[in-house]
This record gives sequence, structure tokens and C-alpha cells, in this order.
Amino acid sequence: MTRQELIANIQRKKSFLCVGLDTDIQKIPEHLLKEEDPVFAFNKAIIDATAPYCIAYKPNLAFYEAMGVKGWIAFEKTIKYIRQNYPDQFIIADAKRGDIGNTSKLYARTFFETLDVDAVTVAPYMGEDSVTPFLGHEGKWVILLALTSNKGSFDFQLNEDKNGERLFEKVLRKSQEWAKEDAMMYVVGATQGKAFEDIRKIVPQHFLLVPGIGAQGGSLEEVCRYGMTKDCGLIVNSSRAIIYASNSEDFAEVAAQKAKDVQQEMEKQLKYTL
Amino acid sequence: MTRQELIANIQRKKSFLCVGLDTDIQKIPEHLLKEEDPVFAFNKAIIDATAPYCIAYKPNLAFYEAMGVKGWIAFEKTIKYIRQNYPDQFIIADAKRGDIGNTSKLYARTFFETLDVDAVTVAPYMGEDSVTPFLGHEGKWVILLALTSNKGSFDFQLNEDKNGERLFEKVLRKSQEWAKEDAMMYVVGATQGKAFEDIRKIVPQHFLLVPGIGAQGGSLEEVCRYGMTKDCGLIVNSSRAIIYASNSEDFAEVAAQKAKDVQQEMEKQLKYTL
Repeated sequence: MTRQELIANIQRKKSFLCVGLDTDIQKIPEHLLKEEDPVFAFNKAIIDATAPYCIAYKPNLAFYEAMGVKGWIAFEKTIKYIRQNYPDQFIIADAKRGDIGNTSKLYARTFFETLDVDAVTVAPYMGEDSVTPFLGHEGKWVILLALTSNKGSFDFQLNEDKNGERLFEKVLRKSQEWAKEDAMMYVVGATQGKAFEDIRKIVPQHFLLVPGIGAQGGSLEEVCRYGMTKDCGLIVNSSRAIIYASNSEDFAEVAAQKAKDVQQEMEKQLKYTL
Repeated sequence: MTRQELIANIQRKKSFLCVGLDTDIQKIPEHLLKEEDPVFAFNKAIIDATAPYCIAYKPNLAFYEAMGVKGWIAFEKTIKYIRQNYPDQFIIADAKRGDIGNTSKLYARTFFETLDVDAVTVAPYMGEDSVTPFLGHEGKWVILLALTSNKGSFDFQLNEDKNGERLFEKVLRKSQEWAKEDAMMYVVGATQGKAFEDIRKIVPQHFLLVPGIGAQGGSLEEVCRYGMTKDCGLIVNSSRAIIYASNSEDFAEVAAQKAKDVQQEMEKQLKYTL
């Protein structure tokens, strides 16, 4: 998906919500366990219910790998289902990969050619040749970890170098030599509040993928105040607060309602800018 | 596997070689393609041939994920095969994972409980709560990326902070608050030469997993000169130079010979220290 198509989807749906498909078989409603593939059955119901209110889906690979071969089957079926039924959804494989060049190249082949997702999250620690193999696939995106939503983000990401530049700022600056805003986004946690102002000084145009509202405690309003651009420039993810809002037979309906609530807040925020 | 068991294996086998099972279906000998599971058939032959000369195996997950469900099946069969037939081998899942706490916890469950490998490589960028969920599993190890073997290691890992500490040094120092040398190792590329001296000032006892000899050009002799401890303290990985040494029906024999050559060099190096 191109940047222009993504922006058009956001404008049309008045939403920049990404639903995180962090599907844990230990947390899904019990009645689904009798299905042949309970994880896929859950995802399918969640997708059908929330698709009108979101513009992206983000399965985190950890949840699928935790189930081994069965998990990979459910993951592949989920991607395929979204692709075939909701072609306007932006699909993010939240994989946080990053390896030496020839290995990153294989990961890129897996995610962009075999699975055909739109974007992969990538960790920056190993530098340029661990990231660039993911680039150059038309309409495909790297979403690079910059400033994450967790407490551990303080350990290294905020480390100031001898010129006063923090590590996440160096990642933002340096990685612009590798790709522009039509192929690169950044992960910035919703819990980082005013850091969005500093981030927008370095990447005024790039889309930011923002996890951490809901269960992790970040504020949508604050994220928009400091992070939104004239093109929106934000994809805000919510996982647990939507997909596990109910644990009964009505789980999909309740998820739809939760997604709609977030979409309506987003519509208000978009009015200020678009 | 405990640290004492690992050291005992190294002493007994006079080897600290890890064979990297980076098995690419596009690179294995053609006659294997008629097997039901060519990747597993290749791994099995390589393992049987090289086991006398090495103390560890390291499959890199990227190569298996590149094949989707089939790849995961081959990966699981490979782990199981080593476990059942060569229980004294240390198994490293080279996955370079790292995510927020509840997600890293799932990855730990996958690798240590479901798959039962000995160690997982982990990326440090997201800090403490992305790493600690991998700890506390008895006899299991985190191998944290410190100073990698690729060119991109210069982009961020060598960045000096305002106190003159480089990022990889901060990772080494800070992570010692999370685990000791009985549960943590570090990845240091063989291409980093004299940096091993600086690393040993911060982690004098820890084992280092050293990729980058062979295809990537690092020198075993230099790694030993600057990195070896009285307990050896090194696990040196070679992948392509061993497993793809021949592309014909004799591939396993040739791999065995290559592994033996490295083992004999290692035996010499061990004589200086153990």
C-alpha cells in the first residue's frame, strides 16, 4: 500500500486505528476452543466486527510462534483472510526482526513475498545492513523501533551521546539516509507523551506506529496533540482493550463497540487537522 | 545445560565450535530435494557428521520462517533430533527476539518450554523488561546482542555517550544487573578483533557467542588471543563454511572434515589456556 492510499483510507474511514491481533489461546472465549482452529476463528470474528472502524491490523508474531506449527498456520490464514476480504486494510507483521544482511533478506522475502503483508517492524540495534534488505519492495514498509512504550525504553533508547543526541534520535536521523517517508515509519510508544514534540522535529512527515494506549496507559489525546501532522501521520494500535473486552459469546460485538468508541475519538482528533 | 556442563563438554571434546544450521532450501544439494522434508534431511546428515567435532548447534530462525509452516516443522524436528540423539549438544535458537514484557514472556515459553532449546539470542534495544522474561528458566540462557559482526554494528553499537561509554559497553554493563554468567552470554562478532580486549574488561567471565569466522572473514586466532578465558569462555560459530562446503552427494563428509579442521585449530588454542 502506498502512502497516498493509506492517507486516503484514513480520511475516508475517519480512523487511524490499528487493531492488534495478539491472540492468545489461553485468553479467547471458551466456546471457541471446540473449533478446528480456535485462534483463526477468533481472529476472523474480530476482523469482521472491527473492520469498519480501523485501517490496519497488526498480528504480533510471538503469539503465533508460541503455538508452533499450529500457530503459523493460524497466522498465515489470518493474513490471507484480511487480504481477500478487506483489501483496504494495512497489514503489519509485528515481528521486531533484524539480523545480518543475508538473513534480514530472508526475513524480507518471508514477510513481503510469501506472506504479502504491507509492513514489518524491525529492530535497529544491528544498523543499516540489517534494515535495508527490507527496503526496495514496492508498496512495502519498514517500521523501525525508535522509542518504545515499555519501561525498558529508558535503559538504552534515552541514552545521550557526547553531542547531546539521544539514541532514539540518532536512530530517527540516521535511518533517513536509508529510506524516505514513503517506505519507512517509526514505532513510538503512546506512553512517551511530550517526546512526540522532539520526534516531530526530526521526522516531521513520517507516519508513526503508536502502541500503548489502553492496557499500557497512554493517552490518545496527548499523542494527537504532540504527534499528529496535516496528513494524520499516526497509526495508533490497540490490542487487549479491544480484542479481550469481553470473554463471552458476545466478544466480537463488544470488540466492535470498543473499536467504534476509539474511532469516534479519532474522528474528533482528525477534525482539528485534516 | 549449566555452565559447568558446558565447560566440561568443551574440555572433553577439545572444541568450542558451534555449527550454524542456516539451512536454505535453495542451497542444499539437489539430490535431497526428492526427500519428503529436504531441510530436515540435510540437517540430520550434517548433525550426524559434525557432532563429534562441535559442542553446539545454532539454527537461525529466519531460514525456517522463510518456508512458512513447512519451515517450522523442519525446525521443530531438527531440535528434537539433536535433543534425542546428542543430549550433550547446546542448542541455540538464533532468533534475535525482544519485545515488551508480556510478549517476551510468550517467546520465552515457546523457546524454553515448547521447543526446549538451551539458549535464545535476544536484541537489547527495548531494555530490561524485554530481556528479563527470558531469565529464570533453570539451565536456560539469554545470549544478548552486544557487538555484532556486520558493518551496521558501527551505526549505533559504537556510539559513545557523554561519559565516553559506547553503547555495546553500556549493554554489557547494564545487563549484568539482570543476570550473572550462569544465565547470560553475549554475541560479539569475530570481525571485531581487538574490541574483545575492551569487552573482557567488562565481562571477564561470561561466555561469548562469536559468529563471523569463515564467510564473514573473522580470525579464530585473534578471537582466542583477545577473548579466551581460563574456562574457554567462547562458543565460536561457523555456518556457511561448514554446511555448504560441498554441494554434492558427499556434502556431509566434507562438512565433517571442515568441522574437524576447525576443531583441531581450537584444540591448539585451548592448550594455551586450559
